[in-house]
Amino acid sequence: MAEGTQHGELAGTRPSVVVVDVLGSGSGQGNPGALEPAVVDPAVPLIYADDLAAVRGDGVFETLMLRDGQVHKLERHSQRFLNSAAMLNLPEPDIELWHRATTLAAEAFSADIGADEAALRWVYSRGRESTGRPSGWITVAPISPEVEAARAEGVDVMTAERGFRIDLSQRSPWALVGAKTLSYAANMAALRAAKVQGFSDVIFISDEGQVLEGPTSSVIAVKGNTLLTPPTDAGILPGTTQAALFQIAQQQGWATEQKSLTLKDLLDSDGVWLVSSVRAYARVKSIDGHKMEPPACAGQIEAMAWQAVTS
Amino acid sequence: MAEGTQHGELAGTRPSVVVVDVLGSGSGQGNPGALEPAVVDPAVPLIYADDLAAVRGDGVFETLMLRDGQVHKLERHSQRFLNSAAMLNLPEPDIELWHRATTLAAEAFSADIGADEAALRWVYSRGRESTGRPSGWITVAPISPEVEAARAEGVDVMTAERGFRIDLSQRSPWALVGAKTLSYAANMAALRAAKVQGFSDVIFISDEGQVLEGPTSSVIAVKGNTLLTPPTDAGILPGTTQAALFQIAQQQGWATEQKSLTLKDLLDSDGVWLVSSVRAYARVKSIDGHKMEPPACAGQIEAMAWQAVTS
Repeated sequence: MAEGTQHGELAGTRPSVVVVDVLGSGSGQGNPGALEPAVVDPAVPLIYADDLAAVRGDGVFETLMLRDGQVHKLERHSQRFLNSAAMLNLPEPDIELWHRATTLAAEAFSADIGADEAALRWVYSRGRESTGRPSGWITVAPISPEVEAARAEGVDVMTAERGFRIDLSQRSPWALVGAKTLSYAANMAALRAAKVQGFSDVIFISDEGQVLEGPTSSVIAVKGNTLLTPPTDAGILPGTTQAALFQIAQQQGWATEQKSLTLKDLLDSDGVWLVSSVRAYARVKSIDGHKMEPPACAGQIEAMAWQAVTS
Repeated sequence: MAEGTQHGELAGTRPSVVVVDVLGSGSGQGNPGALEPAVVDPAVPLIYADDLAAVRGDGVFETLMLRDGQVHKLERHSQRFLNSAAMLNLPEPDIELWHRATTLAAEAFSADIGADEAALRWVYSRGRESTGRPSGWITVAPISPEVEAARAEGVDVMTAERGFRIDLSQRSPWALVGAKTLSYAANMAALRAAKVQGFSDVIFISDEGQVLEGPTSSVIAVKGNTLLTPPTDAGILPGTTQAALFQIAQQQGWATEQKSLTLKDLLDSDGVWLVSSVRAYARVKSIDGHKMEPPACAGQIEAMAWQAVTS
């Protein structure tokens, strides 16, 4: 299940989503700094037909967890958002503006929809092709039942060849590995391919056979007293939840290591989790049909992952 | 210069773009078949904040040449559009509806803007995350002066490692090689990287050193009496202009061949062109600084490429 994917709804019902226009996208002004963010009607379109987000996937995003009115890990997401924007040569986002917009979006969600948990997404686009003005907006939508089910029950995972070597980011900076871009069609296609085959999530593998990441998550393996994850320079997006989890685990006496991992390393470990901001954690119950029983430490790991996304 | 990229305009001026809503995206109905395409105001947003085109690059597109009121190569683009949609498991587009919308868009452009040449773009999205309804629209905008300059003067090209092997589409169908998806951030980044370094276009090279394609074009080499292009199963998008050009060239007595090409093959050829629907052709004046003089046949090749996009 993709992070930030919401319920399908019946035609004609009002969408359960709150929308905040951050950069005056809908007003046609697109003048960052001069306008204040505003809650807009989700039943009215916000994006122009020639916005480069919509016609080229040319922009960046973050998905933050909103729980009980609180937005979590704002600083970690802000840092990655700024990094992603810089990698795409977008004008530097006014992060204080995004923070004010986030507060506004969280308040509007509590007032209008009020679910306990939601995915709050920042979208920052190169803007209209015909005007060159950046656009930016926030959506907030309740998490899906699939997210809660994955937390409670775990996920059956299919491995999928990502199609590149781990030195991609060095050789091909234009591949934008490490930037959280809006060009996610391949990630979505991998999840669809998994579902068709009866799996519920994916772990990407590099040409060298090294474990990379999930389409919307980081991979964590636990072996003895050590939490392991692939190095962030190895063709993956740096995970905000992975980083927070490792910090907490260290404080609680676990060892942590960034280390190249193979599929065999995962299968030989005590347990594997996919971690991300909104879903928090999903234990990997099986990889390509090889069952993985929950280790004795499963409860501890999941408690730390929960703390990582909510503290 | 990206196919379909238009003039930047001053803030506050009316965008030179015509917009047709094909699937009732802006009406919130999104009920293909029940609604007829309609010209909508380009100064009013059309796309919802949670449209998967805008937040995931999850959809497909085509860019068609509109010249003197005529849309060209409709059948070739329609076929690729249907293929792309099928590869993304999108509901099959009602192609007759898209054709009616295209006629409407071309008429509106002639009436409202009336430039000789324009890029007419079809965009078909998985639609709103919160409703699951597909969206689809058309934009029409005048071509930029850079497009005409590239035709007249040619382009200086930088090679760029694509970052994958040519068998990617076999190993990683989720990479969606061969589908013209909205997830074009990496293609745009490669063009930006080229411009920063003083180049005006890019030729992607595979891990094996094989020539692939440009970010928005196909690569054609001419050697003696033969036109050469990389095989379409080799990690590239099948080019509508390349296919039409080869058909015309055969009729005019040229040999044509789909063949794996290296950078050395390009430099050893008589001439290299980047071909695409809107720009038609741009002769490669240099590759990574190695100059390529125009061959005697340049006029003939460019006349055939022009015929390929306009006949």
